[in-house]
Amino acid sequence: MLPRLFKTGASLEAFLRPPRRAGKRVGFVPTMGALHAGHLSLVRRARRECGAVVVSIFVNPTQFGRGEDFGRYPRTLKRDLELLAALKPDAVFAPGEAEMYPPEAATWVEVEGPLTRRLEGAFRPGHFRGVATVVAGLFLLVRPDRAYFGLKDYQQYLVVRKMVRDLHFPLKVVGCPTERERDGLALSSRNRYLDPEERRLAPLLHRSLERAGELLRREGLPVGEVLRRARAPLREGGFHIDYFSLVDPETLAGLKGPALPALAVAAVRLGRTRLIDNLLIR
Amino acid sequence: MLPRLFKTGASLEAFLRPPRRAGKRVGFVPTMGALHAGHLSLVRRARRECGAVVVSIFVNPTQFGRGEDFGRYPRTLKRDLELLAALKPDAVFAPGEAEMYPPEAATWVEVEGPLTRRLEGAFRPGHFRGVATVVAGLFLLVRPDRAYFGLKDYQQYLVVRKMVRDLHFPLKVVGCPTERERDGLALSSRNRYLDPEERRLAPLLHRSLERAGELLRREGLPVGEVLRRARAPLREGGFHIDYFSLVDPETLAGLKGPALPALAVAAVRLGRTRLIDNLLIR
Repeated sequence: MLPRLFKTGASLEAFLRPPRRAGKRVGFVPTMGALHAGHLSLVRRARRECGAVVVSIFVNPTQFGRGEDFGRYPRTLKRDLELLAALKPDAVFAPGEAEMYPPEAATWVEVEGPLTRRLEGAFRPGHFRGVATVVAGLFLLVRPDRAYFGLKDYQQYLVVRKMVRDLHFPLKVVGCPTERERDGLALSSRNRYLDPEERRLAPLLHRSLERAGELLRREGLPVGEVLRRARAPLREGGFHIDYFSLVDPETLAGLKGPALPALAVAAVRLGRTRLIDNLLIR
Repeated sequence: MLPRLFKTGASLEAFLRPPRRAGKRVGFVPTMGALHAGHLSLVRRARRECGAVVVSIFVNPTQFGRGEDFGRYPRTLKRDLELLAALKPDAVFAPGEAEMYPPEAATWVEVEGPLTRRLEGAFRPGHFRGVATVVAGLFLLVRPDRAYFGLKDYQQYLVVRKMVRDLHFPLKVVGCPTERERDGLALSSRNRYLDPEERRLAPLLHRSLERAGELLRREGLPVGEVLRRARAPLREGGFHIDYFSLVDPETLAGLKGPALPALAVAAVRLGRTRLIDNLLIR
């Protein structure tokens, strides 16, 4: 049986009203749909930890920049509902654009500072403002006790966590490990953009992050040298590197010396497809 | 008996947790303290309409501009609690600055567009960003079903209402009529800045707004002429006029012709004291 689908905030709210939610922990998995095993692992975890589970599916226009892939982002609602069926979420919330953003909506939630200026923030201006705004709206509609985010989007996880602390959202943000293909490629809805040759090359991103980790753990090798060696195979493989960095996992500030834990984090373009990935180095 | 006072979000949250709030409508009156009969009328209304009432007292630094009166804004917590005692709110929330704004807080809620650019927005850049941010944080800590705002701060009421709609806060914003002294002066915590001579002059602000209303209702008198005639006595009385306008009560756009309803709205300075007031003309 397909999960219960709600398209308006009002209908979702009515469904989630006490006594349904009374005494139950509500777990929430916000997604943009085009679900893969990474999303499903979040839903499974929510199912294990919470008495009620809500999944949202909304391709959020405000987090895409001009010239990004909003138009061609995969929209596969029917298939998504089929995939979710086995995991039995209590509700799937798939609002239309006018539902999430009322006519003439003009309110933004913005996390300022280095956390949103660095890495993705530098390459996708306005992206995290769109993320924070839609996540705030979804949190206010769903009112979860826990919200589950994949750590592939590590910076997004930090930004959401900061927003939650700063604005006093009464919920816990749970970061969940990245799911990967057997060859190491991080699962992403965007992987389906890759043609067979690009798909063959793509795992090099993860291998390069692992290589950076190995090199960093070797004493005495300076950060600059680690990065040079780890980036080289990507360049040779025809990847365009937006960034490939070693950073502090809390502040995302660039590593100055070989301190641990560190985060190796990268965004690359392979043909028309942009891929991101990261690896915590302990 | 003085009301229960909470200084941390955690203690307030623990107090308001179900079963205390279960099934009860929670009414919320956010204030900056220095309470007067205007605030008390909001609390009374919340008391009438809700099963539980929370009043907050927090002089919010982020809504004051440089050179404004944050430093000298009256802080009268003891007296405020005494005034509230008779109205029996369930809780008074008086957080410290570090409680409302965690260390390195960097998240802002901003309502963009004409609603925040016009009138107060033009004279107090950043003011409504500070208001929206602190009100969002307070809403998330208190989680009221209804929040009560005085219509003296009419533009603030519109901005908060828009934020609530745009971000899907699950609550109703209630605008309450301005309370006035017998001579028409709108009650304001800032009235105590006025020296006796300024206090004697101050009601002219309200009288001028009323005069604008009378002139507007007369057919055929153009808006410009209405404003010229209504402003003249203020100028002669030594008031510095930041703005004195006739606007659409929903958009705050300047009135082009004698349409009703209209809002007469003004901000003036009398010595070191800035006063605002408005009047709905039907």
